[in-house]
Amino acid sequence: MSLNILNKINNPRDLKILSREELHTLSTEIRDVLIKRVSTTGGHFGPNLGMVEATIALHYVFNSPVDKFVYDVSHQSYTHKILTGRKEAFTNPEKFKTVTGYTEPKESEHDFFTVGHTSTSISLACGLAKGRDVVGGKENIVAIIGDGSLSGGEAYEGLNNAAASGKNIIILVNDNDMSIAENHGGLYQNLALLRETEGKAEHNFFKSFGFDYHFVKDGNDIDSLIETFKKVKDTNHPVVIHMHTVKGKGYDDAEVNKEAFHWVMPFDLETKSPLFSGEYVKSYGDITSDFLVEKARKDKSIVGITAATPNIVGLAGLRNEFKDQYVDVGIAEEHAIALASGIAKRGGKPVASFISSFIQRTYDQLSQDLAINNNPATILVNWGGISGGDVTHLGLFDIPLISNIPNIVYLAPTTKEEHIAMMEWAIEQDNHPVAIRVPNMEVVSTGIEVEPNFDELDKYVKVEEGSEVAIIGLGSFFHLGKKVANRLKEIGINATLINPRFITGVDEELLNELQKDHKVVITLEDGILNGGFGEKISRFYSDKNMRVLNFGADKEFTDSVALEVLYERYHLTEKLIVADIEKVLEDIKTLA
Amino acid sequence: MSLNILNKINNPRDLKILSREELHTLSTEIRDVLIKRVSTTGGHFGPNLGMVEATIALHYVFNSPVDKFVYDVSHQSYTHKILTGRKEAFTNPEKFKTVTGYTEPKESEHDFFTVGHTSTSISLACGLAKGRDVVGGKENIVAIIGDGSLSGGEAYEGLNNAAASGKNIIILVNDNDMSIAENHGGLYQNLALLRETEGKAEHNFFKSFGFDYHFVKDGNDIDSLIETFKKVKDTNHPVVIHMHTVKGKGYDDAEVNKEAFHWVMPFDLETKSPLFSGEYVKSYGDITSDFLVEKARKDKSIVGITAATPNIVGLAGLRNEFKDQYVDVGIAEEHAIALASGIAKRGGKPVASFISSFIQRTYDQLSQDLAINNNPATILVNWGGISGGDVTHLGLFDIPLISNIPNIVYLAPTTKEEHIAMMEWAIEQDNHPVAIRVPNMEVVSTGIEVEPNFDELDKYVKVEEGSEVAIIGLGSFFHLGKKVANRLKEIGINATLINPRFITGVDEELLNELQKDHKVVITLEDGILNGGFGEKISRFYSDKNMRVLNFGADKEFTDSVALEVLYERYHLTEKLIVADIEKVLEDIKTLA
Repeated sequence: MSLNILNKINNPRDLKILSREELHTLSTEIRDVLIKRVSTTGGHFGPNLGMVEATIALHYVFNSPVDKFVYDVSHQSYTHKILTGRKEAFTNPEKFKTVTGYTEPKESEHDFFTVGHTSTSISLACGLAKGRDVVGGKENIVAIIGDGSLSGGEAYEGLNNAAASGKNIIILVNDNDMSIAENHGGLYQNLALLRETEGKAEHNFFKSFGFDYHFVKDGNDIDSLIETFKKVKDTNHPVVIHMHTVKGKGYDDAEVNKEAFHWVMPFDLETKSPLFSGEYVKSYGDITSDFLVEKARKDKSIVGITAATPNIVGLAGLRNEFKDQYVDVGIAEEHAIALASGIAKRGGKPVASFISSFIQRTYDQLSQDLAINNNPATILVNWGGISGGDVTHLGLFDIPLISNIPNIVYLAPTTKEEHIAMMEWAIEQDNHPVAIRVPNMEVVSTGIEVEPNFDELDKYVKVEEGSEVAIIGLGSFFHLGKKVANRLKEIGINATLINPRFITGVDEELLNELQKDHKVVITLEDGILNGGFGEKISRFYSDKNMRVLNFGADKEFTDSVALEVLYERYHLTEKLIVADIEKVLEDIKTLA
Repeated sequence: MSLNILNKINNPRDLKILSREELHTLSTEIRDVLIKRVSTTGGHFGPNLGMVEATIALHYVFNSPVDKFVYDVSHQSYTHKILTGRKEAFTNPEKFKTVTGYTEPKESEHDFFTVGHTSTSISLACGLAKGRDVVGGKENIVAIIGDGSLSGGEAYEGLNNAAASGKNIIILVNDNDMSIAENHGGLYQNLALLRETEGKAEHNFFKSFGFDYHFVKDGNDIDSLIETFKKVKDTNHPVVIHMHTVKGKGYDDAEVNKEAFHWVMPFDLETKSPLFSGEYVKSYGDITSDFLVEKARKDKSIVGITAATPNIVGLAGLRNEFKDQYVDVGIAEEHAIALASGIAKRGGKPVASFISSFIQRTYDQLSQDLAINNNPATILVNWGGISGGDVTHLGLFDIPLISNIPNIVYLAPTTKEEHIAMMEWAIEQDNHPVAIRVPNMEVVSTGIEVEPNFDELDKYVKVEEGSEVAIIGLGSFFHLGKKVANRLKEIGINATLINPRFITGVDEELLNELQKDHKVVITLEDGILNGGFGEKISRFYSDKNMRVLNFGADKEFTDSVALEVLYERYHLTEKLIVADIEKVLEDIKTLA
């Protein structure tokens, strides 16, 4: 492809001298670059294709970085990156890894926040605007938010406050009529009505807050965008621009299959097949999904709940087959937990499933709406664990977050059979809110059914009986514990191996018993150590004659650091763990 | 006062046979009871006075507990309690303590949730409605929410989902034009417009979601309420009833001074003076307030932020004196944190102040909007600590919540001078988000200024140098540590006393040094042990030859349990602590 115009653009300033025709050509070139790049590397596809023209028009009219753009979730910021000095990260395969998939202040003065969770842009923009006003500035502050992100409570709190600020703030609503999945909620009926009526419908969500409201019929038309942006630039009051764009614009399949093309794995543009195929292996998500479908067929009171991510949290099956037993609440995790609590209170059997990183959005609801009320809802936590992923999507924090709330029973299955048994128990019992940390690894199946009875809380299971060293391997790290035990055998130590099953409590009887013939207890958890599981074991033994080693992640935000690097850093390999154990045993010998 | 009608009411059924005139008399009787009772015991005054008529009308028209009422925050549920078999708790002083100030399922089958945080009722009601639909029921589900509570994100998520549910759910908006303080936000302009136009304004927030909207001009008029409730009873679709009530209705002073009478201490109805007067003692809130006012006068970039509770979090001064340097975001803690992050990013100096129990509402924003971005905002956490308060307002959880998030520096001052120094440092530095746990106790002042320099993170201060036993007393519990040290002296132990200052890290150098001549380290923290400060010390020593005792609260929800009882239960008296220390020392001797 030829990039005649793009080649000349190294900075938003270069854009401002282009003719309208050149701007149109630029949009075609950028769209080509995006399609090629994202099909090669994977990434957010649909959201970025829909935002090409609007991003060009924004940079044409406003003066970034003095005028400031705040992208919500920021998975629609690729064109922004291309126009602000980072185009090589999209055109040159060798530089593909030099930028993240989200806005990142470390990359550019045109980015203001590291963002990856939704619904935050308006509030952050309110902050920039208020900072401007007290420090003394005159720039435009522009929040760019998708319609999907408007379903989250923080976005509403932002709208409500922005509307009353009485100062320059411009909120660009990118309405492509899609969240990751389809939208749900009364607001979306209003957006649809506003699209139909070209912004003229009687009841207008944005106008009800008092915003100066502008509608852009074709948000992929640079000319009308420029016209509107010019109109509101340097406004002295809060403005909403509601533009209708096409998600996946310019790539037919993405325009049709909006959800599948929201985020893609690398694929071949010609054959349209994935680049890394290999055999499909069943995931824990599939196991969740199959189990829930079977349960729901037999029991009409089972209700699956997702906050806009059904397919990646094991609710694909319910979504496909059931209408009344499946609820997508939008990106509204807080509502999801309260809804689950209410359903359980009324005798239904709710199963609310989340990604670890997003359950962070609902601490107060877990505590107040659910735990204090002790309603027997089932919560599934997916993707918990150390990962090489984006800093905004780490699965490190769910154990400290959930396990320190009274009343909630947080379980950590180690195998397929245990996961199924725990779901079965959680759904059928009615004494506790139960959360299950779905293993974040390849499926391990023993073929041996596990009895769905976890009534006796905090009862750990001794899987191998040994002496001197005891290994408590939590959830998916039980298997690491097994490897450690095997390696210890090689040096003559017959370790005890324990599957604790319960994250939320300490098996005092078993731990006391270990004191008889064990010198060292180690804990393994796939998450941050601070506030986590291992510290409880350390506390239990802290006034006793036992050495404890806690293995897990350090308290730090990591951004796309390879898993192997992190495992080395945190001593999470059997080799490093055994070395640490040997060192402690040596210390004990020295003291004695 | 005579309670001719109320005397006949033991159950909502008794209400249904009354004439309209008797209902009116009943409302007068109940209002008298409320004024008398709340002036005697203290409690929520204004919110309950405004809801007398609506509660009578609700119980007259609907059939509780089959039809279900969900009260938001539920500090407006006293009349509901009076009508549902609990009137003696309001009429008989000996029984005043038999009910809590909020709805409580353990008290009555007419209550469905233990509630004390705002903005949850619509989502919880959605749950009851969904449960009804999957289990098979036909009852009405009614959420009752004040206008102030509508500023929280969870309420919006609830509205958005309720509107799209397509089933029976009735949302009664009790619009008294007040939050605890005045309302802030675009929504409130719309509510005002709707009140002025009697619900006929062009732009209608509720209609924009698609709700079937009904306006009740006088929400203290039983007849029009009954008429409207009858109209919507057994509806097959989502309904909003927007009623205008008078907060504090029927008590002149409360109608005028709505904020002061939101929640009252006991007072004399005739003289109107408080029953427990005594000399006014300056609180840490006053110190915060005075300090911020002085700073803000000199520095126009200081911005105080509150989520609807200015006066109890040390922002009264800013509120009174400044317009542009004070922001009340409504009950929108999430927005408050993102706003602070944005202001700091733009070079302003935000100070966002919360009650411990409410900062729970903003975990994801602390993590994502603030900590990942590492913006130097100052967060104040008030009322953290073990308390005899309501289960929904415990200050136990802020340490696990905040201290396990990377990048945030969480400080625990022990005196007035340290609190001031920490605020000064937090506001002026620009390397970290800093949270300060404002001591929850009587002010301790040494008169000796503390240098506002905490640049060297995790540096503990050894206040008294001793041996054998080291006491690490965090924040307000430093003073308990001092008492323990004094008592240990009596038995011949000269303990080391440490003020850690930093909640978020471990002073490895100092802790290592203690190993030389100390056998036992104890930690004292005013909060839940699980996930807290002490466990980090236990983990640090877990592979070393040191005994550690962690003192703090157990993982449990307590509801109005007296502080003395809790201190005994958790061994938080110097006597019990010293006994525990002696026991460990004895154990060590036995082993040696």
